[in-house]
Amino acid sequence: MIQKIDHIGIAVKKITEALPFYQQQLGVKEVHFEEVADQQVRIAFLPVGDSELELLEPTSKNSPIAKFIEKQGEGIHHIAFEVKNLKDSLKSLEKNGIQLIDKCPRTGAQNKQIAFLHPKSSSGALIELLQLP
Amino acid sequence: MIQKIDHIGIAVKKITEALPFYQQQLGVKEVHFEEVADQQVRIAFLPVGDSELELLEPTSKNSPIAKFIEKQGEGIHHIAFEVKNLKDSLKSLEKNGIQLIDKCPRTGAQNKQIAFLHPKSSSGALIELLQLP
Repeated sequence: MIQKIDHIGIAVKKITEALPFYQQQLGVKEVHFEEVADQQVRIAFLPVGDSELELLEPTSKNSPIAKFIEKQGEGIHHIAFEVKNLKDSLKSLEKNGIQLIDKCPRTGAQNKQIAFLHPKSSSGALIELLQLP
Repeated sequence: MIQKIDHIGIAVKKITEALPFYQQQLGVKEVHFEEVADQQVRIAFLPVGDSELELLEPTSKNSPIAKFIEKQGEGIHHIAFEVKNLKDSLKSLEKNGIQLIDKCPRTGAQNKQIAFLHPKSSSGALIELLQLP
């Protein structure tokens, strides 16, 4: 079902404070930005090899990212895997008793169709599945 | 400096309990196992695209992975990036004031040379750098 790691999401308080480490120290020069109002986050995408790092900064106190940081501090938030057909993947997972956060695909950053699985089914790791537009 | 995501480490209590989700639900068929006595962990490697998932099970209560799970539960533990020359990378990071956990490369799983950076310098994300053998 999963094809590759599309990106790794990292929750940060301020992108402007987190970015210099990734750009100047780890040498990831390219970066593009996007704001996803729906998820109340500002994102910096940093391509690394065949995948991306996604620095996620909350734009409101009610953002899931703000709550994550409040609970356990800044750090790695989720792994996103690319699948060929998100709708079918979700249907098959649900049929097999896997707990889903999003039962139907919704539109995420970069116009991709996305859905999160509940970490209860994946030994605590928050997993996002996505389908390219 | 970093070339690609080599793997993502996920801390789990029991590999036997975590594995079925990744194999049967996410469809990652291939798996190989290794025990790293030095780090007191048993590992299941699951290739995904150009990278791997690394399920890490503690083999002792003193294992860093046991302590991680005790503190914040099972979940994503670290991201590992491949670099061309680990020794030079560590030297340059240290010169630039980045806090290192391992100042010198040591031998990790799959006979790779590895070193961890301190999450204080990377907005809370635990980062491993590694060089292929």
